[in-house]
Amino acid sequence: MLRLDLSNLDPRRVGAQGLDFAEALREEKERLEAARDALWGRRGDAAEFLGWIDVPEDTEAVRNVLRYRQANAWVEDFVVLGIGGSALGAQAVSAALGKGPVRLHFVDNVEPEPILELLRALDPRKTLVNVISKSGSTAETMAAFLAFRRWLEDALGAGWKEHVAVTTDPARGILRPYAQAEGLAAFEVPPAVGGRFSVTCPVGTLPLAFVGVDLEAFLAGCRKANETAQAGAEANLPAQTALVHDRLSRKGLNVNVFMPYSTRLRYLPDWFVQLHDESLGKAVNRAGEEVRTGTTAVRAIGTTDQHAQVQLFREGPHDKLITLVRLEEATEDLEIPAVAGLEALDYLFGRSFFELLSAEAKATAHALAKAQQPNFAFVLERLDAYTLGWLMQHLMWQTAFLGELWGIDAFNQPGVELGKEYTYALMGRKGYEPLAEELKAEGVE
Amino acid sequence: MLRLDLSNLDPRRVGAQGLDFAEALREEKERLEAARDALWGRRGDAAEFLGWIDVPEDTEAVRNVLRYRQANAWVEDFVVLGIGGSALGAQAVSAALGKGPVRLHFVDNVEPEPILELLRALDPRKTLVNVISKSGSTAETMAAFLAFRRWLEDALGAGWKEHVAVTTDPARGILRPYAQAEGLAAFEVPPAVGGRFSVTCPVGTLPLAFVGVDLEAFLAGCRKANETAQAGAEANLPAQTALVHDRLSRKGLNVNVFMPYSTRLRYLPDWFVQLHDESLGKAVNRAGEEVRTGTTAVRAIGTTDQHAQVQLFREGPHDKLITLVRLEEATEDLEIPAVAGLEALDYLFGRSFFELLSAEAKATAHALAKAQQPNFAFVLERLDAYTLGWLMQHLMWQTAFLGELWGIDAFNQPGVELGKEYTYALMGRKGYEPLAEELKAEGVE
Repeated sequence: MLRLDLSNLDPRRVGAQGLDFAEALREEKERLEAARDALWGRRGDAAEFLGWIDVPEDTEAVRNVLRYRQANAWVEDFVVLGIGGSALGAQAVSAALGKGPVRLHFVDNVEPEPILELLRALDPRKTLVNVISKSGSTAETMAAFLAFRRWLEDALGAGWKEHVAVTTDPARGILRPYAQAEGLAAFEVPPAVGGRFSVTCPVGTLPLAFVGVDLEAFLAGCRKANETAQAGAEANLPAQTALVHDRLSRKGLNVNVFMPYSTRLRYLPDWFVQLHDESLGKAVNRAGEEVRTGTTAVRAIGTTDQHAQVQLFREGPHDKLITLVRLEEATEDLEIPAVAGLEALDYLFGRSFFELLSAEAKATAHALAKAQQPNFAFVLERLDAYTLGWLMQHLMWQTAFLGELWGIDAFNQPGVELGKEYTYALMGRKGYEPLAEELKAEGVE
Repeated sequence: MLRLDLSNLDPRRVGAQGLDFAEALREEKERLEAARDALWGRRGDAAEFLGWIDVPEDTEAVRNVLRYRQANAWVEDFVVLGIGGSALGAQAVSAALGKGPVRLHFVDNVEPEPILELLRALDPRKTLVNVISKSGSTAETMAAFLAFRRWLEDALGAGWKEHVAVTTDPARGILRPYAQAEGLAAFEVPPAVGGRFSVTCPVGTLPLAFVGVDLEAFLAGCRKANETAQAGAEANLPAQTALVHDRLSRKGLNVNVFMPYSTRLRYLPDWFVQLHDESLGKAVNRAGEEVRTGTTAVRAIGTTDQHAQVQLFREGPHDKLITLVRLEEATEDLEIPAVAGLEALDYLFGRSFFELLSAEAKATAHALAKAQQPNFAFVLERLDAYTLGWLMQHLMWQTAFLGELWGIDAFNQPGVELGKEYTYALMGRKGYEPLAEELKAEGVE
């Protein structure tokens, strides 16, 4: 169960940067429902990259993943070679719900020292390497694959092939033919699913199967979010949170804090940051006009960041919208014991950690409102696979709605191309010599 | 060795949101040197909280920490109970430079499930618990201490006392008399040192001693930053980076990205976020006038966030200043091997991971500039204790300079008090009944 608490948006509490939500919903009902209809209407077209809507309905893909997991009970260390959308979803969900004993590792950078440290710590006989790249051309991921591939063969000879699983496009790119030629296990990123929307396909589900996440429940939660995304504006939760973002960004709030009250959800903001920033930070709209959209998502964790960022959130400029995530029940709780000699802390004695966490979450939300800092909360009944699936699919829908409301393509990322080309030029890749010359002339080499 | 690369601030490259640094330095020389003189002039006054300037000169405190570490060679797991400034510094440095075999754990939240998981994984006979709270009143830290204290006594009886080290104020608060009464090892947070400036005192050095960080070199680096902070404006590196922040924030850039190109530095942005946000997000200036200062620091890691945030940084609104951290040399490098069947990647064959990391860092900085996104870099000769100490003390100075330039108190955090009082009220603490009634009337309970 997931619900919204919008009470701290009320302008009577938070002043001019607030939002009369009920009034806004009446005013924008038509626009929101038009956006909904446009998104649902386009989902059959692969070029629209709306495949993430349908993936949670595809239970065969999950069964396939689970069969592979069962057939590979020997795995003790599971290494994801992936960056950005190929790592962030599984990282967020595994931190929240993963259970041992398989250890999950993410190689999402090319700094040599941590890669060397990991290679030295792993036993190749007990290690499965999952290389994840839809295009097969991501430099960081492919460099890591070359190194891990060599490391496996040096240790296992021809047996290396049993220790690699490839997750890539069903047809395009260099990894698919390579997997076929070598006879490697291979999984599909559906063509109409972009990296930041890929947690429900094998990009996410394969690693998560190895750490015991209940994938059926996770996908059922995603389907529940799909259901809410079909409703009229009055019950369409993703349209509603998109509306909050849309209205407050139009008031000039360009900073967008995402703050779950949970250490288990510590990587969820990183996943959200990519989803939100890469989807909505766009120079031009669909009509080709320069628009420069996008608010900057900021990671925070409660209560931890009460001691790091909340000072700014309360006293700094009124340029922020804060999204909180709050749990209503603990999975397992722990009593705070009484200790003789520390009676100054008697207000804690006999209470529970979850009571303290909940009190801090409510206290801070209210203190932010008192400082006229608008904030709203996703309230989760508890942290389980169903509810987390619902929340993540909700946030994908929220992002899609915002793209639609702003008239931009939320599913491309043209802004990262130039950096890739400069990298190729600096690495001496064939065909990039003119660009390398150009860079040299500008002092970059 | 640390130097600045300011070339991507040049308005000829990045347009109106750039900065002619040489001209700005000429214009602001007097103001910067007045700020420098004010800071150095006030440092003897404990009420000014400038003790962090002098701590790196205090080699006796470090020797004390190292003696304790040597006397406790039995420790296999070192648990920090601390939140905000009591955890972030040691976390950042240990991730960058820590060496096993002692495992360092940070309990910086009160969510019950992760605390239970840690307690179940630890062997109390091999565990040292370091409770860190300057005031001794931080609810989260003290709740955790009550639970760990009980857990140790349940397992070890009176022997629990050998498994606790207390880091707190030398006189104030409840932890100092408690440590004395129970005969616990105790370390000092100097009265004139605030949490976010405390990494050089035992708050940081005690955990770091247990993971083998070269503390003498770390503090020598901090002293080097002090030296640069005494220079005239033309050589005063912290005054210079403060100037960049000051000028660009006055142009309306309210988002402040901090992006090291290093997984080892993955927690440095979190430490910087607290330092910057909590110091500079202030409602009123020293004259009591409402000012609402502060830019929002945003965490990013290169190359990882090229695949998450750089799309927004390049194509989104021109509201950002980006600080990069780049390394000139690897500590240890790894070759990217050639693999038959993957010749499409031949531009990577035989190159090294560090070459790729460096190319990506330079390519992205240049691509950001091409999108008129101002950025500058701290260039570190390599990642070692001396250079990291220099960088961190530099950033403390940068923060202090900005507070001075903006006329605010960078060393308090009045904005977090109301949330603490609401928490006490919701937890039923004696004396907070009226506030609890007030909250109830507003629907918070």
